[in-house]
Amino acid sequence: MSITVVGSIAFDAVETPFGVRERMLGGAATHFALAASLLDQVRIVGPVGDDFGEAELAVLRTRGSNIDDVERVAGGKTFFWKGKYGWDLNTRETLDTQLNVFEHFAPKLSEGSRAADVLFLANIQPGLQLQVREQCEMAKFVALDSMNLWIDIARDELVKIIEQVDCLVLNDEELRQLTGKPNLISAAREILGWGPSMVVAKQGEYGSALITADEFFALPAYPLPTVVDPTGAGDTFAGGFVGFIASRIGEELSGEVLRNAMAYGTALASFNVERFGTEGLEAVQAAAVHERVVDLHRFARFEPITADLIS
Amino acid sequence: MSITVVGSIAFDAVETPFGVRERMLGGAATHFALAASLLDQVRIVGPVGDDFGEAELAVLRTRGSNIDDVERVAGGKTFFWKGKYGWDLNTRETLDTQLNVFEHFAPKLSEGSRAADVLFLANIQPGLQLQVREQCEMAKFVALDSMNLWIDIARDELVKIIEQVDCLVLNDEELRQLTGKPNLISAAREILGWGPSMVVAKQGEYGSALITADEFFALPAYPLPTVVDPTGAGDTFAGGFVGFIASRIGEELSGEVLRNAMAYGTALASFNVERFGTEGLEAVQAAAVHERVVDLHRFARFEPITADLIS
Repeated sequence: MSITVVGSIAFDAVETPFGVRERMLGGAATHFALAASLLDQVRIVGPVGDDFGEAELAVLRTRGSNIDDVERVAGGKTFFWKGKYGWDLNTRETLDTQLNVFEHFAPKLSEGSRAADVLFLANIQPGLQLQVREQCEMAKFVALDSMNLWIDIARDELVKIIEQVDCLVLNDEELRQLTGKPNLISAAREILGWGPSMVVAKQGEYGSALITADEFFALPAYPLPTVVDPTGAGDTFAGGFVGFIASRIGEELSGEVLRNAMAYGTALASFNVERFGTEGLEAVQAAAVHERVVDLHRFARFEPITADLIS
Repeated sequence: MSITVVGSIAFDAVETPFGVRERMLGGAATHFALAASLLDQVRIVGPVGDDFGEAELAVLRTRGSNIDDVERVAGGKTFFWKGKYGWDLNTRETLDTQLNVFEHFAPKLSEGSRAADVLFLANIQPGLQLQVREQCEMAKFVALDSMNLWIDIARDELVKIIEQVDCLVLNDEELRQLTGKPNLISAAREILGWGPSMVVAKQGEYGSALITADEFFALPAYPLPTVVDPTGAGDTFAGGFVGFIASRIGEELSGEVLRNAMAYGTALASFNVERFGTEGLEAVQAAAVHERVVDLHRFARFEPITADLIS
């Protein structure tokens, strides 16, 4: 069993109320792989430049992830993103984006990456996502992330690739924007009509919600007294969510499996935001992950009491 | 057993994407009482003007609420609020606020209202909340709501009254503003240090979170495909939450009671937002409330699976 992830591998510069990092390893595929690698074999597909060193490759290889399809572009520079977070970390401003090697990226998947059971199409240009989807004919479960930019400038292509995946993972305001429906439930139902069997709404510090044709499940973010750097939290969540599903891909995808997938995604995202960049997920230990999953169970559950209501 | 609520009784003018209402019954005490009256005997304290008619009084009396302390100010006009909601109902603009009879309101509680076991201080000037608190010496459980205006112009008085209540119910951004702490958990812990034994963060469409010294509990809002008018949702939630606690006031206030209080508040708020003004809560039936509480249990629960994590 294995997961192929296609997406950005980047250098990030980040300023949060807790500090500044001028250059650290980042990117959607990186954060996804660091989380999913706890649950299954991961193969990373994406371009990097000459400036990408052995130390960064070693981080990508964490927990045995395969980097055969990490394409080093001679004379190229690695994708770069610079952002600054506001006081409460709920808002962020992009200060710089340099596509660099991503500008001419044409995904070429090796046989190993094409054979994956599970595919995660991280946020890149929808046309590229479509090319990758077509190369992975064996995939039993495909999930996709995107962003407001593509809804603005490439909505038709985006809808076309969404029609060919099992799961759309998107920020909740982007779900509204994509569908033109202001209500999360209506927006998700619209998308379920396009093809996917499930929609996951990422809601930042409020957690996430899962909507299928007959299920609704919502989980709060793991409560932390200090959040240091939210960068990559959504991709880490997706790594835990998709990774958990991948680890059970032979079984029926029951509600209980999906709910646990949400819980693992949520728990792993909490380790990501506690430290800068990839530090949290590099260091995370299995026991600590299990502990937070059990905590989340306790934070969300209650046994209904039938109150004697007055009428 | 009874609950006294002190707060605004109002006429609201509201514009949402689903329609316009030029004048309908509203106000924090009104919405609170309509919800809490399902769970316990409610006594409403607040001023109205000559323009407040029999039809409105009849709504306040729903499910036997006592209106002896609804003070009709001769020659006065009822508090008026006008607001307009944005496309996704997450933002609202106040277009007009007329304090009217509230300008010179000095709460005078009858013996019956003073004898309440449970007191809810809805959002009014903190000095008035303090006066009411002092009149209700018998109260075994006191909860308080407030708003950004009082944090801006009367923070010292607000902190003084918060020190004398058991529970602070506040929008989450106001918790941050009040404490100067950007993080919800840190903000709540700060407030727990002032005196209250619990903090409830209202998070709008994302639901609510409860923080005590040793518990954290979060519940999503009840998922609805159509939200018509969010006005009063927070006060309706508070009515269900405080009402449930009031109905169990002789017992130990266990985590399970508090969690169910959150669930009843959440379920009742969902009926409020489905229709304009007080329509939803006037019509609500016990069976429908119980059904949504059981739904919420299902929407939030999962049984943790211990994944075989790779290290």
